[in-house]
Amino acid sequence: MTETVNSAAPEPDVPSGRPAAMPTPGPGDPRLRRLSLNQKTTERWGVQDAVAGCVAAGVEAIGLWREPVQEYGVKASAKLVADAGLRVSSLCRGGFLTAPDPDAWQRALADNRRAIDEAAELGAGCLVLVVGGLPPGSRDLPAARARVAEALDLLVPHALARNVRLALEPMHPIYTADRGVLATLGEALDLAERFPAAAVGVVADSFHVWWDPQLPAQLARAGQRIASVQLADWITPLPPDALLSRGMLGDGHIDLRGFVALADEAGYTGDIEVEIFNADVWAADGARTLATVCRRWVEYVI
Amino acid sequence: MTETVNSAAPEPDVPSGRPAAMPTPGPGDPRLRRLSLNQKTTERWGVQDAVAGCVAAGVEAIGLWREPVQEYGVKASAKLVADAGLRVSSLCRGGFLTAPDPDAWQRALADNRRAIDEAAELGAGCLVLVVGGLPPGSRDLPAARARVAEALDLLVPHALARNVRLALEPMHPIYTADRGVLATLGEALDLAERFPAAAVGVVADSFHVWWDPQLPAQLARAGQRIASVQLADWITPLPPDALLSRGMLGDGHIDLRGFVALADEAGYTGDIEVEIFNADVWAADGARTLATVCRRWVEYVI
Repeated sequence: MTETVNSAAPEPDVPSGRPAAMPTPGPGDPRLRRLSLNQKTTERWGVQDAVAGCVAAGVEAIGLWREPVQEYGVKASAKLVADAGLRVSSLCRGGFLTAPDPDAWQRALADNRRAIDEAAELGAGCLVLVVGGLPPGSRDLPAARARVAEALDLLVPHALARNVRLALEPMHPIYTADRGVLATLGEALDLAERFPAAAVGVVADSFHVWWDPQLPAQLARAGQRIASVQLADWITPLPPDALLSRGMLGDGHIDLRGFVALADEAGYTGDIEVEIFNADVWAADGARTLATVCRRWVEYVI
Repeated sequence: MTETVNSAAPEPDVPSGRPAAMPTPGPGDPRLRRLSLNQKTTERWGVQDAVAGCVAAGVEAIGLWREPVQEYGVKASAKLVADAGLRVSSLCRGGFLTAPDPDAWQRALADNRRAIDEAAELGAGCLVLVVGGLPPGSRDLPAARARVAEALDLLVPHALARNVRLALEPMHPIYTADRGVLATLGEALDLAERFPAAAVGVVADSFHVWWDPQLPAQLARAGQRIASVQLADWITPLPPDALLSRGMLGDGHIDLRGFVALADEAGYTGDIEVEIFNADVWAADGARTLATVCRRWVEYVI
């Protein structure tokens, strides 16, 4: 196939394979202004690929993950994104703060302090915290939640010192047992509000909170506590692996435009990340995935 | 194998296959007093099998499903359970009240009126309502929720006339899109409280609401609105079919004893159903499943 043929044929969407509904917006297109690529959406891309991919696509912000950043080097990653002129909307992720064992607990705190340092070095808008699930064998949800509060007491001074904002991520109740005991925006705000707004905010991820009847009220309450907005769709039937069950924007049931409007009305003006954990998306070519994201962003979000 | 060997060997639990932790409590055991078998737990049992199974196991209450009841006949089912001396803790289920199409809407209302009549004939403690998900192609969750309220306005007079209590079931947010747009006890109570308590209550099902940080407060608020308490565990990894992802009591992460204690403190004194949608449980012999339920009930619930 030649370039000409490629340009003429409608590029299929990832992962549906359906023809694209519109031309792909590109560099300089003002509609892409607040779009950020969370690196997890293009799982196979390292930091270099992801940065180059964003620049090529005209995406001005990126949400980085610690593992690829460490692989490339924190300093080198910071220089790379700065040289490319990208904003780092978030660093994912700290957390996992529910261990009852004293050694595991100290290791978790130390790792979170390192994550704060990395976020500072990258100039990340926030450090996303996935707070952790129930400890093995435990059925004591209130105790696990209390443990998260305890950890924050210990981490906030370091976050303030490094000028890094911690972003508590309430997670869909499908993950309460094994990943994140904070299940609602209201609960995350109850916890965040114990600390200065500069130190602790919340993540509003459409996949995690779209179902909540209190969503409009809690987003309005959140206001300046909204540290990060992330998007993925809820698709049915739910893919068999609960951890990889998020859908491409527009493939599912969430009113993404309405969701972003609520965040905007609450005063959020920052970047909006697209973060999709999905085996079919991850199997696709990163540039094709990002092109689909850019099209769906225009079609379903802004 | 002989009877003697069978009696001596510890009977394996369903579905884990692990040896039973205790002898199976039997007929007349006061510990089984509030236990009700929701018929769905023994999916392969029709009404006759389930009634006979409960009597043989010493379980005094049963939650019936409309399909097997219709198969055996509503009148005949009512006579069978009455002759066996069983209480009918609930009839499952009405609902699916979110259709925007006028014909589908009228069919749903008519079907729910029939369900109310059946619940009356069976002397069921309540008619469980699974309210329905988003209509096909819709992303308008508030509209679907409003549609449920509209349907209740139309159904409550018939429920009052037949002396049947409707029980709104808030469902785990894993089902918000395709099964039940009511996602929390608080939301279900907001809706129930528009109507007389005799006409509309709520279902507190551990699987659906265990993760909710507001659970203690909302159960306390519910008080006499608690029309049904149902139990299943939350297991990880979550089975691949989201509809069949519930676990046997004690196999998962939920503090079932604490859950029942909250309902009791709120003033609930009725039967407690065990309702487990799980392919491995359904594949097992009904009597073995019910024996496991009776043992786990003693070990993890009361």
